[in-house]
Amino acid sequence: MSLLILGSVALDAVKTPFEEHEDLFGGTASYATISASFFVRPSMVAIIGDDFPKQYLEDLKQRNIDLTGLQIVPGKTFRWSGEYFDNMNNRKTHLTELNVFADFIPVLPEAYRKLPFILLSNIGPDLQLHVLDQLEDPRFVIADTMNLWINIARPDLMKLLARIDLLSINDSEARELTGDNNLVKAGEILRSMGPKYVAIKKGEHGCYLFGPDQFFSCPSFPLEEIKDPTGAGDAFAGGLAGYLTDHCDAAVQQGGINFDILRQAVVYGSVMASFAIESFGPDRLRTVTKNDIEKRVQLLKTYSLL
Amino acid sequence: MSLLILGSVALDAVKTPFEEHEDLFGGTASYATISASFFVRPSMVAIIGDDFPKQYLEDLKQRNIDLTGLQIVPGKTFRWSGEYFDNMNNRKTHLTELNVFADFIPVLPEAYRKLPFILLSNIGPDLQLHVLDQLEDPRFVIADTMNLWINIARPDLMKLLARIDLLSINDSEARELTGDNNLVKAGEILRSMGPKYVAIKKGEHGCYLFGPDQFFSCPSFPLEEIKDPTGAGDAFAGGLAGYLTDHCDAAVQQGGINFDILRQAVVYGSVMASFAIESFGPDRLRTVTKNDIEKRVQLLKTYSLL
Repeated sequence: MSLLILGSVALDAVKTPFEEHEDLFGGTASYATISASFFVRPSMVAIIGDDFPKQYLEDLKQRNIDLTGLQIVPGKTFRWSGEYFDNMNNRKTHLTELNVFADFIPVLPEAYRKLPFILLSNIGPDLQLHVLDQLEDPRFVIADTMNLWINIARPDLMKLLARIDLLSINDSEARELTGDNNLVKAGEILRSMGPKYVAIKKGEHGCYLFGPDQFFSCPSFPLEEIKDPTGAGDAFAGGLAGYLTDHCDAAVQQGGINFDILRQAVVYGSVMASFAIESFGPDRLRTVTKNDIEKRVQLLKTYSLL
Repeated sequence: MSLLILGSVALDAVKTPFEEHEDLFGGTASYATISASFFVRPSMVAIIGDDFPKQYLEDLKQRNIDLTGLQIVPGKTFRWSGEYFDNMNNRKTHLTELNVFADFIPVLPEAYRKLPFILLSNIGPDLQLHVLDQLEDPRFVIADTMNLWINIARPDLMKLLARIDLLSINDSEARELTGDNNLVKAGEILRSMGPKYVAIKKGEHGCYLFGPDQFFSCPSFPLEEIKDPTGAGDAFAGGLAGYLTDHCDAAVQQGGINFDILRQAVVYGSVMASFAIESFGPDRLRTVTKNDIEKRVQLLKTYSLL
């Protein structure tokens, strides 16, 4: 069973209190797809310009990824630049150059329309909705978003929330979207907006998962050094969605996904995020092994044994 | 086996974004002792003035607490006032009136000197050291501190760290004392200063426990409403110390406390902290039942099942 992943592919410039790097392999779909590819063969939907570095494209091609849905068009690739402060928890976006992304219409290849597992990584909710409209029978839809869309596209975002199964959102966005500072309340308010499940990402403090009368608090994997938090949320969602797709064949046939499997998926997503932040760009993430992943999952379980 | 608890008893004035209250039953020893009294009969060492409200004193007397070490002297009781902002994670102290606390010399009653379990709640490290000096054979010493002492009494604090088994400290204080923003590193640096175990409290984000080649990430109990965070850290330390004292009789006879028991103690401490913050003053904390505590411990275990 495969997983459709929609999102952006970008060239990033990132500054932290310690280092600064340009022309990094970035974008929400990039991190999510690389992360998911350790569990399944994801089908990517995104757009790049003809300036996109060959080695990055080559890297995607050599992975276990279906690139039929990756549009390569004349023009410049989407660019993002941002800076992290303090404990890497505060981020400021310096620049967003849409470039080829400005005219992106995600038309799904025929084979993609039948896919049951969907990850709508963070891009405009209109594009996320447009992809949903083309699907024949989506069984489990995960979506991520960001503060920008909460501010400038709230009506579309609300439409999206009504049509998804799991929302992945960070703590400050959850507070902004619900108007409630308390994350336990915010999670329930978000569920009342549509999604049966809500994952609130808290950066170094882990993640909350909310379901019908269900709650899970997942710690982050403890790291002595964080190089660059960019892509952590996307690697989280990609790992979560990849794990689900890999394990839920039977469950979906039976009509649903249960909280136990989702809990495991969140653990794997958290571990994938921990790899994403150990390098600038997805360098560390893309070179981990299945064994590295399993080791961290087991360690995280040991660290959280109540 | 009993537990000695040193600290302050105070009258607090607390302001939050939602409410404001005065003349609250406060102090580090108050919260810690009330919390510990659900597990053992703690022996309190503190000082109050003759203005201390009778109903608060009566409340202590009616609990399972040895008050031989509580000095009642002519004068005014120690007063503290503070304000909480935002998500209740930021606190500002408005006023500290030492009053009778200014001349406090914690002289231990004879029977206290033989006690094996010691909780030195947050007060000046010189007083904490003075109590340690009077003990005949302390087996497990827990200490808490605060940013004030890091700033004005660091030499004494460093002496204290060399003589304790477990340091309980919050995240911002851990960062300040170590100069390292990364809490995983900060925990190890603190251990290198003396204590075999370090608990870093992260407020709503739970707690990290560090030991020799050991690590535990404990989530906080999720609450939809936090009334007043005052005393959370003291209730945490009191619950932790109380649980340890109650469970470690055998372990101590064998020469040590192991990480599994400490992990459980941290879980109980976290749950006691969750009760402390549900009311202004210790009203909620002092009226919980053993059953309430066990229920939350079981729920927290369910919420954290990886």
